Amino acid sequence: MTKTYKIAVIPGDGIGKEVTPWAQKALEKAAEGVADFEYEHFDLGAERYLRDGAILPEDEEERIKHNDAILLGAVGDPRIKAGILERGLLLKLRFDLDQYVNLRPSKLYKGVTSPLANPGDIDFVVVREGTEGLYCGAGGAVRRGTPNEVATEVSINTAYGVERVVRYAFKLAMKRKKHVTLVHKKNVLVNAGDMWQRIVDKVAEEYPEVSHDYLHIDATTIFLVSDPSRFDVILTDNLFGDIITDEAGAVVGGVGYSASGCINASDEYPSMFEPIHGSAPDIAGQNKANPTAAILSAAMLLEHLGFDDAAKKIHQAVEADIEELGSTVRSTDQVGQDILNRM
Amino acid sequence: MTKTYKIAVIPGDGIGKEVTPWAQKALEKAAEGVADFEYEHFDLGAERYLRDGAILPEDEEERIKHNDAILLGAVGDPRIKAGILERGLLLKLRFDLDQYVNLRPSKLYKGVTSPLANPGDIDFVVVREGTEGLYCGAGGAVRRGTPNEVATEVSINTAYGVERVVRYAFKLAMKRKKHVTLVHKKNVLVNAGDMWQRIVDKVAEEYPEVSHDYLHIDATTIFLVSDPSRFDVILTDNLFGDIITDEAGAVVGGVGYSASGCINASDEYPSMFEPIHGSAPDIAGQNKANPTAAILSAAMLLEHLGFDDAAKKIHQAVEADIEELGSTVRSTDQVGQDILNRM
Ligand SMILES: CC(C)[C@H](C(=O)O)[C@@H](O)C(=O)O
Ligand SMILES: CC(C)[C@H](C(=O)O)[C@@H](O)C(=O)O
Repeated sequence: MTKTYKIAVIPGDGIGKEVTPWAQKALEKAAEGVADFEYEHFDLGAERYLRDGAILPEDEEERIKHNDAILLGAVGDPRIKAGILERGLLLKLRFDLDQYVNLRPSKLYKGVTSPLANPGDIDFVVVREGTEGLYCGAGGAVRRGTPNEVATEVSINTAYGVERVVRYAFKLAMKRKKHVTLVHKKNVLVNAGDMWQRIVDKVAEEYPEVSHDYLHIDATTIFLVSDPSRFDVILTDNLFGDIITDEAGAVVGGVGYSASGCINASDEYPSMFEPIHGSAPDIAGQNKANPTAAILSAAMLLEHLGFDDAAKKIHQAVEADIEELGSTVRSTDQVGQDILNRM
Repeated sequence: MTKTYKIAVIPGDGIGKEVTPWAQKALEKAAEGVADFEYEHFDLGAERYLRDGAILPEDEEERIKHNDAILLGAVGDPRIKAGILERGLLLKLRFDLDQYVNLRPSKLYKGVTSPLANPGDIDFVVVREGTEGLYCGAGGAVRRGTPNEVATEVSINTAYGVERVVRYAFKLAMKRKKHVTLVHKKNVLVNAGDMWQRIVDKVAEEYPEVSHDYLHIDATTIFLVSDPSRFDVILTDNLFGDIITDEAGAVVGGVGYSASGCINASDEYPSMFEPIHGSAPDIAGQNKANPTAAILSAAMLLEHLGFDDAAKKIHQAVEADIEELGSTVRSTDQVGQDILNRM
């Protein structure tokens, strides 16, 4: 008998609603015969907020926590002031569910045109810390709106929080090309940077087979353009990870092919899987959005639950689809169906 | 009679020492007949620090302040722990001399190969705030080296500091394509981001001819790769400015062509001009570094002093040099001489 997993589904806003059903269908099909899924849908995001003011009610968050994993579409709407849904829903889930590893693979698929003239063979993973740094919300403002206003943002970094994500990165490197690059700005952010570097050096001693180096965030943005194939595992903090994964997405031909996992690697709470693209209000509701990233997030969910073979089915179908049809203009549903047909 | 300007010269480390003399020669030649220069050399940087422990002695900083402008090469040496020279020398000068505008033009010159397949016509300027944000050095650590260590970094932003640089950006846009893009991460850094946005909106009212928009830092790293010609003036904070100007440098064919001005736009203290590249210890002392960025920083210095025609001479010589010989391998001295010969 196959086990049934409970999946919380949060389609969210804009194209999130269009691509998430395809992630579910891919999940089903890939796991046929090895796992079953039971879905609990959550109506969270801009529409809900505009309707009744709710962002993430406590009881709903509690119910989300009782699932085995979460599929998320995208969150964000131009009608709502920046920060409200991001901080109140997306980041609240990442923080409350202690999803301390934000895993973001970047791969240049055959058939995708990179904006780079000579992209080389790009295949790396960013391990982004997900529960600390400048994302803590520890900041404030005094004399708001006056000429004497002062606004602060505080980056909080703990040895506890850094060490667990550093360990994750080195473990992951053992399964890959065995190289970790720490990205920070330790020549300016000397307190946090120094701690990250010391912890990396310490953990590295336990992984003599894994080599590691260091790059400043500014230099990293250069190498992502000039020599992206040099990277294997990039390890970095919450804000720098946000920045370089978008650049990396662009370099591999657009964030439409990039999925991400917000992972609680201690399994106390469910992990969450999402495309890295946003809600794209400009093309929402037009059956235009590419569901590939959402479908790849379903593969990451399967890997997380231990179904590597099922995840592989998705990866193979996606790779074949992109190689053959990646450059043709297709609707959301067409791409979704094409990928499903190959599975 | 031509006026004599006093220039403080800080060649600094590595290739800084090789390229700065060419910046001086270009300055002289460009300003022949319109201005004279008197140089005061400062032996600051890694060698000095390793020799006598001095980074920026008070009396030397006082002497620097009594110059009309500063030419800086590059600072940084792998033998010295990250942060010491950066915080103690480079950033100390930017902060103490209140150089609140960090001006960084990015231009794709004819004859330079961009790593992008279709770079388009790239010509924008980043106006980076230079005296606030995460660069203040306001952070600390407790229980350093223990499993309970906590390290913080604090971004301090003031309406005073933001408004003056916002005004600079809008004024600059009036002389260019009249478009300002504010770059921040206001959906996460809600305190600082909100203040920046409010001040931009307020100042924009005084510039009805200048249009303005907003991009998150992560989205900006995408557009710098996918559509860099969309930008005119990018306005951003200290850290985000650091990050995107390096990416921009890569996109226009390498930081070897990018100069920068650390400008005290109120003229209370001298402004400082430097290439955006670093000290490049791997190629230092080999007569290999490209002096073009340093020479362009001399042009920025001339513009700052009001000698637009002299600055133009440098720009024209550099453009002609790159167009004709940009792709040939030449020594530092050869490139410097070639550019001088055209002036
Ligand atoms: C929407 C935003 C809060 C989020 C982030 O900054 O983490 C997004 O950019 C991402 O990368 O997942
Ligand atoms: C050397 C370093 C402190 C500096 C900075 O971060 O500002 C450099 O990267 C720059 O961009 O001028």
